[in-house]
Amino acid sequence: MKAEVIAVGSELLTPTHIDTNSLFITERLNQLGIELQGKSVAADDRTALRTIVTDALRRSDLLILTGGLGPTDDDLTRDVVSDLINAPLEYHAEIFEAIEKRFASRGLKVPEINRRQAMVPRGAAILANPNGTAPGLWIEHDAKRILLLPGPPRELKPMLERVIEERLASVAGATRLFRRVLRITGQSESSVEEKMQPLYARWLCAPVRIVTTILASLGQIELHLTAAAETSDEGIRALDAAVEEVKHALGRDLFSVNGQTMQEVVGDLCRAGSLRISAAESCTGGLVMTRLTEVPGSSDYVDRGVVVYSNQSKTELLGVPADLISAHGAVSEPVAEAMASRMAEIAGTDLSVGITGIAGPTGGTPEKPVGTVMIAAAWRRDGKPETRVRTFRFVGGREMIRFQASQAALDMLRRWILEAAP
Amino acid sequence: MKAEVIAVGSELLTPTHIDTNSLFITERLNQLGIELQGKSVAADDRTALRTIVTDALRRSDLLILTGGLGPTDDDLTRDVVSDLINAPLEYHAEIFEAIEKRFASRGLKVPEINRRQAMVPRGAAILANPNGTAPGLWIEHDAKRILLLPGPPRELKPMLERVIEERLASVAGATRLFRRVLRITGQSESSVEEKMQPLYARWLCAPVRIVTTILASLGQIELHLTAAAETSDEGIRALDAAVEEVKHALGRDLFSVNGQTMQEVVGDLCRAGSLRISAAESCTGGLVMTRLTEVPGSSDYVDRGVVVYSNQSKTELLGVPADLISAHGAVSEPVAEAMASRMAEIAGTDLSVGITGIAGPTGGTPEKPVGTVMIAAAWRRDGKPETRVRTFRFVGGREMIRFQASQAALDMLRRWILEAAP
Repeated sequence: MKAEVIAVGSELLTPTHIDTNSLFITERLNQLGIELQGKSVAADDRTALRTIVTDALRRSDLLILTGGLGPTDDDLTRDVVSDLINAPLEYHAEIFEAIEKRFASRGLKVPEINRRQAMVPRGAAILANPNGTAPGLWIEHDAKRILLLPGPPRELKPMLERVIEERLASVAGATRLFRRVLRITGQSESSVEEKMQPLYARWLCAPVRIVTTILASLGQIELHLTAAAETSDEGIRALDAAVEEVKHALGRDLFSVNGQTMQEVVGDLCRAGSLRISAAESCTGGLVMTRLTEVPGSSDYVDRGVVVYSNQSKTELLGVPADLISAHGAVSEPVAEAMASRMAEIAGTDLSVGITGIAGPTGGTPEKPVGTVMIAAAWRRDGKPETRVRTFRFVGGREMIRFQASQAALDMLRRWILEAAP
Repeated sequence: MKAEVIAVGSELLTPTHIDTNSLFITERLNQLGIELQGKSVAADDRTALRTIVTDALRRSDLLILTGGLGPTDDDLTRDVVSDLINAPLEYHAEIFEAIEKRFASRGLKVPEINRRQAMVPRGAAILANPNGTAPGLWIEHDAKRILLLPGPPRELKPMLERVIEERLASVAGATRLFRRVLRITGQSESSVEEKMQPLYARWLCAPVRIVTTILASLGQIELHLTAAAETSDEGIRALDAAVEEVKHALGRDLFSVNGQTMQEVVGDLCRAGSLRISAAESCTGGLVMTRLTEVPGSSDYVDRGVVVYSNQSKTELLGVPADLISAHGAVSEPVAEAMASRMAEIAGTDLSVGITGIAGPTGGTPEKPVGTVMIAAAWRRDGKPETRVRTFRFVGGREMIRFQASQAALDMLRRWILEAAP
């Protein structure tokens, strides 16, 4: 079944509003095995809306329209659909009575314009709206199904749930979709793609077909695996097997096999190994700590952090020798190492990271251009901290350089913990 | 001119991803006076993409496609468009050489599949991509204009800017749109709405018409003012006058009159007053420092910060007396005050904040439910720090509680600096 969602509303075509109803609708449709082949936003304009709905209706079997069911002049969804399918609008007194009652319960008189919400294309089924005035509409026309839902999420959601249960579940195929999000670091998109190519091809022909999407951003690559199966047992088993193959192909560069973020993965490793963690940050300005503490329950393994932005603070808070800074510069491997190992000692934690670099846009030099970041990890075992340090050259703007640096720091810890695991 | 944007990518049809590029594109088109009549998302599927592009091309004069220009098999935008307009793909050696150079500069060999990115529909103009491998493409076909842009924002944005300047500005109409984003804190949406209502009405009838949108989220309210004018002088003058009226209506709760974030506003105030700043954070886990240091040049006024997640770290790093913690609890006004004033003293900065609270989802008690956050600000003048402290009860999940706490902390500093200003 080919499905499309159309969100109706001129405000959704401005730079400040975005249609999010379709995310919820997609999630619920996917669970029934119905995939969207497209979605769109249409202005509150009769001609524009009509052409967009006409085109979508030609190419899809199920069309869900959200919004444009209000009582005002620019609520056009009912009119346009009625016109398109040649089903004249008919007045339903019982709808208007329900609206009247709704107003009356708040001591208000219903405005005349709300009568428009009682107009229904001939043959449409009326979907009651316990949370608002506009009823939903379910229309079957020429083997196509058209669902009209109100825009406000609290009106739309319960109505969609009922439609799924009463009308869509039975017409959806037996096949449902199961999804797994995998995340990778330390490789380029094309290198991942090359290694994955043979797997993609095989999965597409497997008894439980798996479709893959690759998504690259600075600092991580995502693989989305979608399996179509008749039972959740089958779907999950196929995805588990596929994940094993990806693990084999990509090794430790694959850091997340079920949507976990890097900070969740590092957190889980710390908890499992009873490791406590701290961080000393300069150019990332607290981003590593912010990410680590984003995770609920992170106080189990996060102890403390310092943001040593000024050189003086590096010396005063961490005891990084001023000599070391003047000899090598604040952005240098020895300083990153000193930050990480001193932080681990001061905090008394097992693990720590030290990050110093040039996030830009200014401050770069020919030897240390913007994007140069030195990252050290420290692990205190038997007293003295052991350190590892690397120099990175990140691309992108300030925000992306900081994100990549925080990602690389967490990733250094992750790889080290995995190596050390028995 | 009727314009549409099509975002290409199956991931944008899943419940986990949303197209945000179109917001930026809309903003820039609006500034030229070009409004969207619709926008859509298409799957990485040849048939689905083809029908969606065909339909959009029939109803619009300007079509902007984003994404699907990568090197992999599911990057289909080039192919589909070339096919639709009957312009066969031709190999451009100079594009591949630029890609090769890009890889070589990082010591990498370019994979064979990247050759696909050097294929260009006959007659298309090539738009160089300094930030990635995929060039953009500009196509004029049957009085229609088609613009193909890469999906990653950092590649798309500068390319769009150049296209606007070199190709779109000249074809757009005379009226342009000018927009101003205002931000407000410390008031509810309905209270802002009530105070603004008389202004809205007047602006709609003014010679230069101004349309307002209100957008509420936890921690701040945004007002978007859009003026339609033929010259930027006219547009800007009308917006300046409108902003003055809002200032008068909302007073100091209006913190940003031109899109600045709270951290930029606080940063500007620090720079103007030669004030240095530090922060001691517990439940926000470094978010205040992360936000402050997000701003380029923030090293001018940000000195250092500590994230004292464990109780022990509050005592060891800041010298908050263990007695004080055991007497009042770590989440208490006296501890917040001690954190702020000790931090200011240790760092030797003028200003500091101390934040301690319960971000949840667990850890709440009947007296201190999840969302309880104590925030103190400290100002060192003539030696000893003076402090102010407040208890907040934020609603929402962990992420939103942390954001609101960081926002409130920065806002306390902002209001204090403004009060103290001569």
